[in-house]
Amino acid sequence: MPTGLPAKPLLAVLRGERRDPPPMWMMRQAGRYLPEYRELRAAKGGFLDLVYDSDAAAEITLQPLKRFPKLDAAILFSDILIVPFAIGQNLSFVTGEGPRLTPTLLSGDLDQLTAYVGRLDPIYETVRKVKAALAPGKTLIGFAGSPWTVATYMVAGQGSRDQAEARRLAYADPGRFAAIVARIEEVTLGYLSGQVEAGAEALQLFDSWAGSLSPAQFEQWVIAPTARIVAALNERHPEIPIIGFPKGAGSKLAAYARETRVNAIGLDETVDPQWAAKELPSTLPVQGNLDPLALIAGGDDLDASAKRILDAFAGRPHIFNLGHGILQDTPIANVERVIAAVKGDK
Amino acid sequence: MPTGLPAKPLLAVLRGERRDPPPMWMMRQAGRYLPEYRELRAAKGGFLDLVYDSDAAAEITLQPLKRFPKLDAAILFSDILIVPFAIGQNLSFVTGEGPRLTPTLLSGDLDQLTAYVGRLDPIYETVRKVKAALAPGKTLIGFAGSPWTVATYMVAGQGSRDQAEARRLAYADPGRFAAIVARIEEVTLGYLSGQVEAGAEALQLFDSWAGSLSPAQFEQWVIAPTARIVAALNERHPEIPIIGFPKGAGSKLAAYARETRVNAIGLDETVDPQWAAKELPSTLPVQGNLDPLALIAGGDDLDASAKRILDAFAGRPHIFNLGHGILQDTPIANVERVIAAVKGDK
Repeated sequence: MPTGLPAKPLLAVLRGERRDPPPMWMMRQAGRYLPEYRELRAAKGGFLDLVYDSDAAAEITLQPLKRFPKLDAAILFSDILIVPFAIGQNLSFVTGEGPRLTPTLLSGDLDQLTAYVGRLDPIYETVRKVKAALAPGKTLIGFAGSPWTVATYMVAGQGSRDQAEARRLAYADPGRFAAIVARIEEVTLGYLSGQVEAGAEALQLFDSWAGSLSPAQFEQWVIAPTARIVAALNERHPEIPIIGFPKGAGSKLAAYARETRVNAIGLDETVDPQWAAKELPSTLPVQGNLDPLALIAGGDDLDASAKRILDAFAGRPHIFNLGHGILQDTPIANVERVIAAVKGDK
Repeated sequence: MPTGLPAKPLLAVLRGERRDPPPMWMMRQAGRYLPEYRELRAAKGGFLDLVYDSDAAAEITLQPLKRFPKLDAAILFSDILIVPFAIGQNLSFVTGEGPRLTPTLLSGDLDQLTAYVGRLDPIYETVRKVKAALAPGKTLIGFAGSPWTVATYMVAGQGSRDQAEARRLAYADPGRFAAIVARIEEVTLGYLSGQVEAGAEALQLFDSWAGSLSPAQFEQWVIAPTARIVAALNERHPEIPIIGFPKGAGSKLAAYARETRVNAIGLDETVDPQWAAKELPSTLPVQGNLDPLALIAGGDDLDASAKRILDAFAGRPHIFNLGHGILQDTPIANVERVIAAVKGDK
């Protein structure tokens, strides 16, 4: 094509084109299932040390593309809790227990939280390094957590059963909860915009806990803040597509897509692809949604699971992905197998 | 009506009739939010002691109807883990940590599990006592956990994050998992049948963890065993309606209703009632689905939440209920308020 470069497959689909075979990447694709990641982590220290070492983070971001050259995208190696850290909470990762944020936001003066947005700069440095090293045709995806999901951690100080602390605060003191969400929204918008300026070509908003809210709360705390972020990003960076991933939204997926105006929607593994193909607008790109446990199990059932998804979305823009993050005991051979199944070169 | 007794409102709706105002009860309605329950528990000992003391269990079952005479039904005071106990696992409740079942079913010989179905007899005794004491017009609901949800506890030995142990076993060794589910199915069928013979007038199948499965696994482990239980119960007790409550099933609710052939479907609080009213057959009775946190919060928002549900289901058979169990810090005054809102006598 003499008049320009061919479009990157992932970006073409995010613009609404259909590609065969579909582009493919895997959520949280860098990580402990890869021996090269475990090696780097053992050498460099803890999770946050890796995130804040932009050379290491860039290398980790690119590891899956190096090992699996048929994948179409790399997602930034970082964490959704970088935003609370940039708002001023202390962040640590306790081995075997997950993240801790202190002080929690259950009470206390929100104005005490000074902005530490400089804490985001090393992440932009990682983005720049990845972008510079990216192979032709591959897409770099930036990301953040959605305000609701980030708020659940900021309020409870850690992961929480049913997100009870945040949900209770939202009912008991909606004004305070709205102030927390507004602050997250503001920092997230700057953070995603910074990632784009550093070289991210597409963005994903992870809403891991979208599934725990009643419809009215879902409207208020998931849809409304997401719609505001999408609108502001579209204004600043009209060429950058945004994938919304409201995990567990189930029957509310169509409303989410319609009202947030995300450019594409990520489906978790509990969504029936045939249902989604019928219920979501046929022009809306969908991403997903293989069960990470099917990937671990492997075998003929893995091929059948992948085929069911490919068939259901054959008539529309589709990005093949998992429905949730890849698990650490996933055999590399199974990853190779599903890539072959999707890319059609078994 | 000289030719017979007027139908009980809850049973009429479960047969497909519309009643105004709708009948109403609250899931896990007996419990720690009631001072009279806390008092009895303090006097009598632990949770299992109460379940196995049929006088106490009958009294607890009836406590909500005594305090809130406008409620239309009582649900048996018991626990879904009585079935694993009847299959031969040891059951204990650790304060602050929840139930423990030993040995777990992750490995080991399933044939070692001798049937202890005699452990179910005291429950039938409770049912008989409640039925004898039930006020006119009130309905006694029996219940059990669905095979999938019960299996998640039997396999992990306790509640588990994302039900990972059971989901992994189902992928890794479907034959073994099917054998576990078949055993649960068999005992559950006998147990529900025994409750009916003792006086239960309607049954509810609680599938608390239906939301964590991929569509194929949902078909295999939620829909198929539920459909078999429903068919067998319909055969034995054609007059007894069965409410299915697949919590978290989201977009798969319509398939669940269609394929299991339950007589009514329970909706959790994350389901948009307007969506459900449109997607579920208009003749299918629905039950739900107030957010238990809205009940705690109270105030005008509680009235508005209740009204949104009542309005959405105004044109069909509807049983007003919570979308999940009532929480222990629920103010009694708020329960009174929502009963007034539903029953229309503020």
